[in-house]
Amino acid sequence: MSARPFLASILSLACLAALPAFAATDNTPLPADALATAAKLRDAGMAGDATDGSSAYDIVESLTTEIGERLAGTPPAERAVEWAKAKFKAFGYDKVYTEPVTFEMWTRGHEDANVVSPYPQHLAITALGHSVGTNGPLEADIVEFANLDALKAAKPGTLDGKIAYISNRMQRSKDGSGYGPAVMARVDGPSIAGKLGAKALLIRSIGTDHERMPHTGILEYTADAPKIPAAALSNSDADLLSNMLRRGAPVRVKLELGGEMHGMVTSYNVIGEITGRTRPDEVVTIGGHLDSWDLGTGAIDDGAGVAITMGAGALLHRLHLRPDRTVRVIAYMDEEAGSFGGKAYAEAHLAQLKRHQLGAESDFGAARIYALHAGVKDSAWPVIEQIGQVLAPLGIVTERNATDADAGPDTGEFAAKGMAWAQLAQDGTDYFDWHHTANDTLDKIDPKALDQQAAAYAVLAYLAAEAKDSMGSGEMPLPKPEQ
Amino acid sequence: MSARPFLASILSLACLAALPAFAATDNTPLPADALATAAKLRDAGMAGDATDGSSAYDIVESLTTEIGERLAGTPPAERAVEWAKAKFKAFGYDKVYTEPVTFEMWTRGHEDANVVSPYPQHLAITALGHSVGTNGPLEADIVEFANLDALKAAKPGTLDGKIAYISNRMQRSKDGSGYGPAVMARVDGPSIAGKLGAKALLIRSIGTDHERMPHTGILEYTADAPKIPAAALSNSDADLLSNMLRRGAPVRVKLELGGEMHGMVTSYNVIGEITGRTRPDEVVTIGGHLDSWDLGTGAIDDGAGVAITMGAGALLHRLHLRPDRTVRVIAYMDEEAGSFGGKAYAEAHLAQLKRHQLGAESDFGAARIYALHAGVKDSAWPVIEQIGQVLAPLGIVTERNATDADAGPDTGEFAAKGMAWAQLAQDGTDYFDWHHTANDTLDKIDPKALDQQAAAYAVLAYLAAEAKDSMGSGEMPLPKPEQ
Repeated sequence: MSARPFLASILSLACLAALPAFAATDNTPLPADALATAAKLRDAGMAGDATDGSSAYDIVESLTTEIGERLAGTPPAERAVEWAKAKFKAFGYDKVYTEPVTFEMWTRGHEDANVVSPYPQHLAITALGHSVGTNGPLEADIVEFANLDALKAAKPGTLDGKIAYISNRMQRSKDGSGYGPAVMARVDGPSIAGKLGAKALLIRSIGTDHERMPHTGILEYTADAPKIPAAALSNSDADLLSNMLRRGAPVRVKLELGGEMHGMVTSYNVIGEITGRTRPDEVVTIGGHLDSWDLGTGAIDDGAGVAITMGAGALLHRLHLRPDRTVRVIAYMDEEAGSFGGKAYAEAHLAQLKRHQLGAESDFGAARIYALHAGVKDSAWPVIEQIGQVLAPLGIVTERNATDADAGPDTGEFAAKGMAWAQLAQDGTDYFDWHHTANDTLDKIDPKALDQQAAAYAVLAYLAAEAKDSMGSGEMPLPKPEQ
Repeated sequence: MSARPFLASILSLACLAALPAFAATDNTPLPADALATAAKLRDAGMAGDATDGSSAYDIVESLTTEIGERLAGTPPAERAVEWAKAKFKAFGYDKVYTEPVTFEMWTRGHEDANVVSPYPQHLAITALGHSVGTNGPLEADIVEFANLDALKAAKPGTLDGKIAYISNRMQRSKDGSGYGPAVMARVDGPSIAGKLGAKALLIRSIGTDHERMPHTGILEYTADAPKIPAAALSNSDADLLSNMLRRGAPVRVKLELGGEMHGMVTSYNVIGEITGRTRPDEVVTIGGHLDSWDLGTGAIDDGAGVAITMGAGALLHRLHLRPDRTVRVIAYMDEEAGSFGGKAYAEAHLAQLKRHQLGAESDFGAARIYALHAGVKDSAWPVIEQIGQVLAPLGIVTERNATDADAGPDTGEFAAKGMAWAQLAQDGTDYFDWHHTANDTLDKIDPKALDQQAAAYAVLAYLAAEAKDSMGSGEMPLPKPEQ
């Protein structure tokens, strides 16, 4: 996931607020045989004994080993598109196709930073996504701000010719709620600092680790500000820089960033379908994003999400299960720079909004799922409760009014237009230790945790596709647009 | 610490084996008032309330912030020499001086590695210390060996024109005993692979982490082998490379290493003394090493050791304690390339061997001390037991026949010539997660753990310096030389 996880949180709260409180009911909208089949599906997924390479772990091992990093628009991302098509076909998906996604391409280039004085030292940094380059070395004194608000409060001119440095630290939490407050330093900081006259911006990495691994991630330049180069220091280096500054003498840094935009390019969402038995034109979508940042091998962000959902569909095929509606697995392209795959999908399929039974997305790492959340119409909530009962043995609780419910960055784009959605919330306690760093590699993934997730997605997709009635796409009040 | 921790283990075993079993005794070779004073010293150290920058944490914060990495022979290492002299003086050491240490200087230069085919990907690597460079890109197929023995067993010629790759993984343990078996791949691997015709050697990092951080460390070329470039892959990249190789197709890697030797240079051990009250010519030495590898800021290896022992001496001064013998704190230079500081000290002071009451060294990270070990003559063991009683409230147990006892890499050089020694054994469970990587930074250090260690070294140094009789330097049978 990239910049704005809290957007979808706002959406979900708006949805939930619009619904009347849930009332206990006796109707069982999912028949007993569908529930029994789902339980078998769940147990088969947990067994994790696929021998055809379709277990979620085998899929992410293949993606990270054979492709590795896959920054949208670059050759490895295009190889990943071919890889995804081949995998869908190999795993028995009966329809495999692509849909175009157009976005601006960026590459990183050489990057380096050093304290010049008073304590010459190397600093581990990485450019923020879409950052302009420095055009050779850029040298300036550092001015530290405790957080983005402190930067906003700086008097115009105080940053003339300086490098601004925002040193706030992200807080760890299971639901990732520390990300939203911290990440705006990365997203909005560059233009705010640019307007104040800064030559460049450094930020403490938006991450919860204390490894010497800078965290990249997208920035958003505004039209009214000069574009200044921006980079993240690893948390270790942020400590170091703050400790130097605490001594009082001016700290001068030499920064080199080679970031470059390459204009608009077109890549693809890759889609595989298990076609529905009786209502093939109605779909349940699950998916993750195929692109990754360029520093690690994109194992947890979001190779895992692609693998979990692709593996879930493969499991249906392996057990010869074909639900009433179509299960559509989407490997989105260029989530990282702003959910472009999700936006493209929502735009291309807007006319079929009501035929989207439910959308869900896995984009929060590789740790186990602990909760089921949903944004569905009131009358569909009993279906969610029944799905939750099948998921309960996996340690998943069904929460109706969770304040941290989130449709996900790509699925959230269509949810914002009225699609019913569900969330299988993962434990994100460690996610931001590795997120957007070179450390996002396969060794952070527990195969058994992936089995649990693929099993849960298979159950969710199967039962949502079997439910008799609509879950509310196109019938619910639309959430307010983001503030 | 660097290459051969097990050398000193072998020494200590030899020492201990030469001693008769300990017999309980009623004599109390340390008087009650010395023990009471030592208890006060311990409690003052644990309070960690120095306001003059002499707490161990403040010292290592200063060294890592104001100097940072300090590869022996390079300008920052020379700045560290000046830093150490200034600190000793500031903390009230009454004699501060340097002694020359001569060694061959090496620098790293540019380094990069990429899989060329069949799965183009970047690999995170770092050159081993003293590795020759590749003189531009070197491209070859990889041949994997499960461990050093498998490489040794390779038939001559099988590696002609290839890059050898040793993939064995170091095991985690509290006492660091996993290091010895694993590290020989790094130390001896390059010459063994060179003799077999390999163009270069890659090894899995000698480390227990799963971070994308390659571990450097010294190699030892033998005179009878061609010098081939050698580098370590991070553990994450070692997994990646092994996973690629497991697929069966040839894996081709392009390697660039810029390592360079610069001939002999002279730097310095930096020494500070709290001069003894009644026997100033007799000394207890404690210390750590001032140099570090060039990737991190040398916080745990071995800024912590310098800080702990420098802080211990400072604590004596701060409490106006001057024991009978001199307490000599040594910040050794160029431990990393082969304990050159320790060798220089042993050589320069050989004539004063018997006047060295005891030597001890902190070079195993920054985690708490859990045991007291010693290599002293039998009749001195009751002194060690009494010291152990003062240390017991710090969670330190006195172990007479510990198989993992170790005089340390620098102190071990003089211990090998007959100096009595003690070891305050630290918990090394996490040490090899960060050892010799860019991740060796201040944020890995718990200030309270450093207080415990400085308190323990202060107690050990004070009481050893107060003991009436010799602990056996020059009187014990010499250990057998290393095999």
